This record gives sequence, C-alpha cells and structure tokens, in this order.
Amino acid sequence: MEPVRILDIIKSRRSVRDFLKRPVEDDQIADILEAGRWAPSGLNNQPWRFVVVTDKGLAASLADCTRYGSIIQGAPLLIAVFLDKEVMYDHTKDTQACGAAIQNMLLTAHGMGLGAVWLGEILNHKAEVSRILEAPESMELMAVVAVGYPAAGSRSRSGVRRDISEIAFAEKFNKSIF
Amino acid sequence: MEPVRILDIIKSRRSVRDFLKRPVEDDQIADILEAGRWAPSGLNNQPWRFVVVTDKGLAASLADCTRYGSIIQGAPLLIAVFLDKEVMYDHTKDTQACGAAIQNMLLTAHGMGLGAVWLGEILNHKAEVSRILEAPESMELMAVVAVGYPAAGSRSRSGVRRDISEIAFAEKFNKSIF
Repeated sequence: MEPVRILDIIKSRRSVRDFLKRPVEDDQIADILEAGRWAPSGLNNQPWRFVVVTDKGLAASLADCTRYGSIIQGAPLLIAVFLDKEVMYDHTKDTQACGAAIQNMLLTAHGMGLGAVWLGEILNHKAEVSRILEAPESMELMAVVAVGYPAAGSRSRSGVRRDISEIAFAEKFNKSIF
Repeated sequence: MEPVRILDIIKSRRSVRDFLKRPVEDDQIADILEAGRWAPSGLNNQPWRFVVVTDKGLAASLADCTRYGSIIQGAPLLIAVFLDKEVMYDHTKDTQACGAAIQNMLLTAHGMGLGAVWLGEILNHKAEVSRILEAPESMELMAVVAVGYPAAGSRSRSGVRRDISEIAFAEKFNKSIF
C-alpha cells in the first residue's frame, strides 16, 4: 500500500454541507456502511448502529430537530449513528468506537467523490430523533452524517488545524515534539 | 481517488500486538500524528493531545498500568491520546472526535506497513498514566496506541464483524437494510 494516499484522503477531506439532488447509489451506501462496520471497538463489541434515511418525509421530521435542518433536508442520504447500550461495556470507549466508525464512513464517502458532514448539534434533540426513527430504548444517538454529491463550491475551504506543537509532545507533556 | 482503496485499507487493518525491535522512523511518526491532527471535531475544537513515547524507561512505567504491559513494553512507539478538557465543549462529542483521531492514526500506520493496537484497558489506571506523563490537570486519558513493525504472525486473523443486517437499518429501526 502506498503510504501517502491514505494521509492524502484524510487531509483533503472537508465538511460538505450543500449537495446535488443526485441520489447516492445503493452500492455506495453499502460501501459506506461497510466502512463503519469495520471500525475497531473495545472487546470487539461493535456498539454502533446505523439508520439509513433517504425518505424525504422522515428527513423533514429530522430537520426539525436541529438548527442545521436545511443541511438535513438538502442531503440525499442521512446516516443516523446510534450507540447500542445493550452491548455497551464502557461509555467512553464505546463512544470513541462510534467516532472511529463515523470517521471510516466520512473517509470512504470522500474517497468515492461524495461529500459529507458530521452533525452533532442534533444531539440536543436526541430523544425526538429516537422517537422519529423508532429506536429501541437501548439506543443513544451519537450523530447524524449527511452525505451526497457536493454542490459546486460547497466544500469548506480552510480546514484550519492547530499547529502540531500545540497538540503533540515528546515523551512527556513538558517537551515539544519536532 | 479510487473508491475501493480506502475501504480496502479499512477492511484489511487488524490489531497488531507483537512488534519487531526496529524503530519507527521520525517521518512515519510525523505522518501518523498528522493523520490524527486532521480528524474532524465539533466546532473544530480539536480536543486531542498526543504524547509520543519511545523511551524504554517510561514505557516500563506505563506497562505497569495495564494488564497488557507486555504489548506496551514490546512496542517501539507508543502514542498516548488525551482529551484536553480545557478546550472541551461536549464530553460525548469530544470523545468521539478522539476516536476519529485514533482511527486516522491506525489507518495511516497500517497504510505504511506498520502495525498498531488501540489499548483501552489502561484507562483503569488513567490517573497513574497522567502522573507518569506529567499531564496537566485538564488532560483526560482516552487511549494508548502501540505501534511498530509487525512481528511475523502477529496480526490478528479473523476480524469478525456483526452481519450488516444486525447493525444497519432502512429508514427506521424496524426495517432491515439489504
């Protein structure tokens, strides 16, 4: 495998919030879910659950649960990600695992030329989202990922990140790296 | 970008727990950290902090903090991942973001022919890890990632995952997908 490619995909990914109407194909959806499915998890408990929403009526209901409703309504594909507390063993580790699964899905969508955005603000209304999607009692909403073909100019430009010296340390916290 | 490649990297990654003594090069470490740095986070707050440990004395101290001490001691490179609560805005979302950063690092390591394992059990002794690494008060340990060149036969084989029908649903939880 070429070392640069995966880092290139990671670094060139941006949030996309505005999509073409063109639907995401079933085999693309399958690949995105497969990417989420192959995330690592503690004790390999695979606590993530994905609800794939393409129905416009459902999307409209979900849109009412967040101030970013226009993104939800404009996306041809939504993936609601839940943590199944029935298989949970540690809330922190299982929440991380869901983050890893989401990142796998974002990278895979980007790798196939789709755009996506990780929506978290909707957690402010997670009970309502659970009700709309008829989630069993054990399900805790983690995020909604909106996916589609990027509209022209829809890709965030900057992708600003903290300098490496701010976030990475050598051996102990008192020593900068590089 | 080729759609299959990123999914191939995601699916072929396995936990590696046994490493050659060969050190990980500085430019490889830089690429792995860069991958973590480019994870997405809510409000782009980038709450992850990475402590790169290659010192054998420090590694021995960290090894005493987990029942998987032999993995820690055998790894030429350790990356302790912390959540900086000083920049935190939501514990769940920031914990997910750290999971996304860890997954970026695991994928990048795998993509360059290195092996790695995500160690979570060490969180049982996170205060001790923080003490050893002289972490400021605001730092919460999220995981330790052990990295190195895979020893022969060190790669987990199976990588069993739940069937897609168990984790993914169409429109609502009551309807299977595919």
